[in-house]
Amino acid sequence: MTSLDALLSTKYPAKAHARRVAEGLKALGHSGGAIYLEAQKTRLIEDNDEPVPFRQRRPFFYLSGCLLPDSALIYNIKADQLTLFIPPISPDDVIWSGLPLSAAEALERYDVDNVRETTEVNATLADIATSNGNKSVAFAIAEQVSKGIKFEVFSETKLEVLKGVIEKTRVVKDSYEVALLRKANDISAKGHVEAVKASKTATNEREIEAAFIATCIANGAREMSYHPIVACGTNGATLHYGKNDENLIDPTTQRKKDNVLIDAGGEYRTYCADITRAFPLNGKFTPETRQIYEIVLQMQLECIEMLKEGVQWEDVHAYAHRIAIKGLLKLGILRGSEDELFDKRVSVAFFPHGLGHYLGMDTHDTGGNPNYEDTDTMFRYLRVRGRLPAGSVITVEPGIYFCRFIIEPYIKNPELQKYIDVDTLERYWAVGGIRIEDNIHITKNGYDNLTTAPKTLEEVESLAA
Amino acid sequence: MTSLDALLSTKYPAKAHARRVAEGLKALGHSGGAIYLEAQKTRLIEDNDEPVPFRQRRPFFYLSGCLLPDSALIYNIKADQLTLFIPPISPDDVIWSGLPLSAAEALERYDVDNVRETTEVNATLADIATSNGNKSVAFAIAEQVSKGIKFEVFSETKLEVLKGVIEKTRVVKDSYEVALLRKANDISAKGHVEAVKASKTATNEREIEAAFIATCIANGAREMSYHPIVACGTNGATLHYGKNDENLIDPTTQRKKDNVLIDAGGEYRTYCADITRAFPLNGKFTPETRQIYEIVLQMQLECIEMLKEGVQWEDVHAYAHRIAIKGLLKLGILRGSEDELFDKRVSVAFFPHGLGHYLGMDTHDTGGNPNYEDTDTMFRYLRVRGRLPAGSVITVEPGIYFCRFIIEPYIKNPELQKYIDVDTLERYWAVGGIRIEDNIHITKNGYDNLTTAPKTLEEVESLAA
Repeated sequence: MTSLDALLSTKYPAKAHARRVAEGLKALGHSGGAIYLEAQKTRLIEDNDEPVPFRQRRPFFYLSGCLLPDSALIYNIKADQLTLFIPPISPDDVIWSGLPLSAAEALERYDVDNVRETTEVNATLADIATSNGNKSVAFAIAEQVSKGIKFEVFSETKLEVLKGVIEKTRVVKDSYEVALLRKANDISAKGHVEAVKASKTATNEREIEAAFIATCIANGAREMSYHPIVACGTNGATLHYGKNDENLIDPTTQRKKDNVLIDAGGEYRTYCADITRAFPLNGKFTPETRQIYEIVLQMQLECIEMLKEGVQWEDVHAYAHRIAIKGLLKLGILRGSEDELFDKRVSVAFFPHGLGHYLGMDTHDTGGNPNYEDTDTMFRYLRVRGRLPAGSVITVEPGIYFCRFIIEPYIKNPELQKYIDVDTLERYWAVGGIRIEDNIHITKNGYDNLTTAPKTLEEVESLAA
Repeated sequence: MTSLDALLSTKYPAKAHARRVAEGLKALGHSGGAIYLEAQKTRLIEDNDEPVPFRQRRPFFYLSGCLLPDSALIYNIKADQLTLFIPPISPDDVIWSGLPLSAAEALERYDVDNVRETTEVNATLADIATSNGNKSVAFAIAEQVSKGIKFEVFSETKLEVLKGVIEKTRVVKDSYEVALLRKANDISAKGHVEAVKASKTATNEREIEAAFIATCIANGAREMSYHPIVACGTNGATLHYGKNDENLIDPTTQRKKDNVLIDAGGEYRTYCADITRAFPLNGKFTPETRQIYEIVLQMQLECIEMLKEGVQWEDVHAYAHRIAIKGLLKLGILRGSEDELFDKRVSVAFFPHGLGHYLGMDTHDTGGNPNYEDTDTMFRYLRVRGRLPAGSVITVEPGIYFCRFIIEPYIKNPELQKYIDVDTLERYWAVGGIRIEDNIHITKNGYDNLTTAPKTLEEVESLAA
């Protein structure tokens, strides 16, 4: 067993998370009482008797480590007691689905103090309220409280505070969470390698996607962090491409298209990997794709080198634009001075999205405080604003795209058209898009790159050859 | 291109379905007016900015053949005009997701008379109501009508009739639908073969599942019809097993477990395959598993031979029990006379579920009229009751299971225990469960088996060897 798997065979630190959330509540002036959270319910597909694919509620998992549906959780703040409530055994279910986890097994498996049945939730809530006297507060998440759950015994019920506090607490990961993210990354890196290998005989994007997904499932990441993007040729210019069903052969040249962009990550016990790579379909990148790949890789490597506790994310994002501008100037796609191009936000035409986002139980993890109303186009789509704390995990995913819908308005703009050399640009449309994305754990003095998928030009071409 | 793929490259017969549904309404005394249906909406995962995995609404697809979200459909019954409404183009979406299907392309692709934008739904409804004079009726499905859709111009709005009529109409499939089911079966059969192959080097159930899913995705069946069951050893006795994460090695013997039951099917353009196979993990079935396999295969083959238009499904199900009883008597697991065992419903302990269900856009397709309140345990879980019409597609999936939760109450029952030989039974617990399931198209004079996955003992053992 690797040291990673050894750590992950211990309990998920649910109790520590409950304590940190209680501290977060206290810091906002909310003290005492109980935190109440519910698991996702078993639900049926509309008009159908099959269950909806299950995705555990993240706030519940964060304080329980438990993947069971229809469960609940109470943290008694003053007594520091964490209680998990699991559904009572239904004899009918046992016949069809076998014995569920028993209370004793759940106590063995999860980092909680007690395990009871969900029928005991109200009695437990009442006990806590009573023991807290006349200043007892119940914290829960609005719209995540089942009918029949009774908070009346508490002097106050707050449904609008808890969610935000949990989301903020989740930004800083502990070592167990980093291990889960590393495990998701290790599995997904294998998936990326298998995807490149599959591309050698594949005829359609979906065969490459299949290789990625199969590798994740076979290695224990049953769910995808998000719908994979497997985009060949110019499909790579479509940022949210997800059809993944196009032939790899160009119908006019009868030759394989130049390259594939794959943005895909598996989920391991609710924790997400999010990795993007690009690789050639004919063994070697075209000269144009190679030039763009080199710029994007430089953007990514230099931005990663800037990372450590306290760095201002906007600065890193802006720096990525500086490198993009210098590179595109050198290729002759852009014209003018670096500062002018930066000030006019011309590079946004080629790198329109943010440099990265927090990563955790959600692919776009909580606590980033984006400002989608920002009138500055360079920062509008940046999903994280402000300084990065040690312990946060963030994606670094610069890209350069040749997307007509995005670039053409710049070419048609009387003020901006002079900055873009359309003749030189003409040679680059076939590149589609290149994005390179790793998952980075921020530390006090630097960073730890969790992503091990092959990335240098040489590694990628050698794998694809 | 195969003849199957050639047929499937033509349009899905949406207009014919609309006419059949209108006839169904008329047969119930509802005439004139308009049928209004909505596609599934684009929705976000709770607490998350990623979309919920998309599953098209079946009633909408049946009358449109369209997989686009956020669309709508109106069938003007009197004018026999089918109009598809697609979402208007959003410039923001184009930047991130590329150009959507245009109205002209949609008209080319779908079997509809007109394509408009969803902003025109209310005007179209008003036109139809006016043209129908003062007896105009709007038919829609309760809870599948968006806010803002206006039926007031109609003299009457019926929200409780349409769904049932569509569900009944769906029972009889046309040749295009049978081709879709055949295609889903062809892909899924490949998946089953690859699953057996993967089992030779696999160490965990999930590697077998991965091989099945990857084969489906690579061949164009992106979604599973249902959560696959990949159950090794005694997990096969759990009817709804779905964890698919157990090691194939028995921890006590350090040898691979005896066999795997795999119940898995891919979905092709909303149409579902549903196939179950069992195969040995050590090249050959154990003698006990082989004996049970032979009984189940006989149940399946003989039941399939009974099938043709008008057959009473309960008779086929009961016949399967007769074969199970004879087989288990011969093995010495059951004791007594065949008739007595049948009358006392003892075989239900070993074959507790129904023989099969309709199959189509839902795995458990509509129109089966089950009676889950039936006090007769032999028929309570039968998902189809009554006579099978030509054109219906039904699964035939007998099974024999050695599940302690199900069998032990019979052994403990003073009236029934004499029918079961517990000493002989002891040797069979390790079998787990065997189920063999094919998808059968009912015709006027017989049937057409759509499932091509290897099934005989020899085929299965040879593939697994």
